[in-house]
Amino acid sequence: MPTTEPQSPNVDLSATLELAMELISRPSVTPDDLDCQELMIERLEQLGFTIELLPFGDVKNFWAIHGHHGPVLAFAGHTDVVPSGPELQWSTPPFEPLIDAEGMLRGRGAADMKGSLAAMVTAVERFVSTHPDHDGRIAFLVTSDEEGPAIDGTRAVVEHLRERHERLDYCVVGEPSSTERLGDVIKNGRRGSLGGILKVRGIQGHVAYPHLARNPIHQIAPALDALATEHWDSGNDSFPATSFQISNIRAGTGATNVIPGEVEATFNFRFSTETSEQQLRERTEAILRAHDLDYDISWTLNGEPFLTREGALVEATMAGVEAITGQRPVLSTSGGTSDGRFIATLGSQVVELGPRNATIHQVNECVRAADLDELSAIYEAILKQLFVAQETR
Amino acid sequence: MPTTEPQSPNVDLSATLELAMELISRPSVTPDDLDCQELMIERLEQLGFTIELLPFGDVKNFWAIHGHHGPVLAFAGHTDVVPSGPELQWSTPPFEPLIDAEGMLRGRGAADMKGSLAAMVTAVERFVSTHPDHDGRIAFLVTSDEEGPAIDGTRAVVEHLRERHERLDYCVVGEPSSTERLGDVIKNGRRGSLGGILKVRGIQGHVAYPHLARNPIHQIAPALDALATEHWDSGNDSFPATSFQISNIRAGTGATNVIPGEVEATFNFRFSTETSEQQLRERTEAILRAHDLDYDISWTLNGEPFLTREGALVEATMAGVEAITGQRPVLSTSGGTSDGRFIATLGSQVVELGPRNATIHQVNECVRAADLDELSAIYEAILKQLFVAQETR
Repeated sequence: MPTTEPQSPNVDLSATLELAMELISRPSVTPDDLDCQELMIERLEQLGFTIELLPFGDVKNFWAIHGHHGPVLAFAGHTDVVPSGPELQWSTPPFEPLIDAEGMLRGRGAADMKGSLAAMVTAVERFVSTHPDHDGRIAFLVTSDEEGPAIDGTRAVVEHLRERHERLDYCVVGEPSSTERLGDVIKNGRRGSLGGILKVRGIQGHVAYPHLARNPIHQIAPALDALATEHWDSGNDSFPATSFQISNIRAGTGATNVIPGEVEATFNFRFSTETSEQQLRERTEAILRAHDLDYDISWTLNGEPFLTREGALVEATMAGVEAITGQRPVLSTSGGTSDGRFIATLGSQVVELGPRNATIHQVNECVRAADLDELSAIYEAILKQLFVAQETR
Repeated sequence: MPTTEPQSPNVDLSATLELAMELISRPSVTPDDLDCQELMIERLEQLGFTIELLPFGDVKNFWAIHGHHGPVLAFAGHTDVVPSGPELQWSTPPFEPLIDAEGMLRGRGAADMKGSLAAMVTAVERFVSTHPDHDGRIAFLVTSDEEGPAIDGTRAVVEHLRERHERLDYCVVGEPSSTERLGDVIKNGRRGSLGGILKVRGIQGHVAYPHLARNPIHQIAPALDALATEHWDSGNDSFPATSFQISNIRAGTGATNVIPGEVEATFNFRFSTETSEQQLRERTEAILRAHDLDYDISWTLNGEPFLTREGALVEATMAGVEAITGQRPVLSTSGGTSDGRFIATLGSQVVELGPRNATIHQVNECVRAADLDELSAIYEAILKQLFVAQETR
């Protein structure tokens, strides 16, 4: 069927589902790509994109760009998926995609995020066909290391782009942002993530001779309570309050008559823009010192918080969603981290928009097939909002 | 050489060292006995003891008695030893006993407690030879399961004796009670030991969505602090204050972004006679309830506290030590538990008296060879205090 007037949601978008299913059929468990990127590259080359392979370590990445001047809008995503877990728990094989009787596209990566990748490619195909002389430039930033360590993926590509002063004005990340229905939530930022491993040393001994020992579990307990009940900040209009969670604690060898010599606790901050990493570290250590602990602490900054305030990209994305779904999305900064944290360091406006996230990282991952067609239409609408002069849309 | 006047410490006691070395050369790692008991039984049979083998499960035990009427004094001990650990860390092979240039008898079990067993046997040999018509009855209660689970050892024998209403007035346990010099400390009781495993349930979740989870580590922290700082009692003249120690804590799978669903803490009370097991349990659970925890707790009573107040056995033991060493011992209830806790339930007076405990359960376990000869003389002096009419000592 011919491509019809793009503003209508009734276009024939089955190309999106075909590509999504082709991608899902490759079990590209992180950090494997299994030529998923090659599939995308072939399509983009046909459109006239310039392709740049940017492998780092074992990780495949590519950067592709189309157009010659003006602001750059990049579609960003990943071809790697989390492991399927026990395949027997799946009602259909995880790497044999199908659309079931309820119209759900099933398979690992359907929602996170091969569906989004397919929707991006087909959106750009239609847009470039109908607007060969569009304003601005369209780019792709695709990695196979988002679900793994995320070191040789988007992070490395971003550093590469930074070194050569590549322009990246707008970025749409295909992470599954929607909750109840497609496009109900757009992420326009993410909280920061700061991890710590705290070791508190005591003096090992026998429980029968506590005066010769110093029990580190007894020592850490009130300090952990103080950290867990501390009011770190109240958040702000864009971010919820900073939260502190202890994820692991461990002391003792199993012997019931030995006072252990050390206790180790692992914790994580998800933090708003109201408190800096440095402030969190200082306030944590002040609490530990106030409890007179003999401690070591090892910090890992997983990501600074980022926020894309109202502006061209947020406006275009809101308008694109509303045009296709008829409903206005809400902006959110909740949830985990994403590769958006790396891209935002280039000074780019970054939003995340993808399908519903109800089944991601679970068995029987699935997405409404029709949602992927609509998502492709939304991506196309965003391109038109940004890169087509108002009178010619 | 002939046995000389028993009150003198200058008697030839090398028989003690010979027997101790014979016992140490058998690697009777708990619960193995390796015929150590048979060695003792042969010697006691020659003295006219009636022997009763009382094996339970895989554990060898025996009960031996000499004499026909009057109060019973039992010598109690164990032939099993703790493992040697890496033999290469020993300066001499652990199961090849020798007396070194400094006069130390070296080998696993030298102090805990094959030296005491040898001293008991030779003390009784001399005493029975010189006082064939002694007052009272002399018994042995020997097990090969003191260092292990301690279920089929003394505990089982005591239950057997209780069932047949065996009389056991006095008991001298050969545990290494001495600290700085032989006989400086006699244990006349032990604290109770009550263990608990506490599980606190929360609701598992992702650290990015703490409002959907309930962190059990955050919940247990103030409760553990309250338990650790609780004043359980002040002890009394015979016992130090009851102490509470957490020996193990564990939560989390290692993943740093998951709020665990449960935390488990293991703790132990060493308790005085001022607070009962029941009171400790009730007060612990009241603290947990006050912290509004969803918890399970599993209790194990390892031993009730016991105390042998001043009386015939304590007096005889003090006098015996003073007669041989010239120094008055002190009474103590400190330290871990021993099989004395089981024997005391028969209503017996129980004391523990043995060599210095500086090297027990360590590599290069050793004891002053001369101390074992003196210890044998002390045991003999206790027998005389209790079982020889004053005018004929």
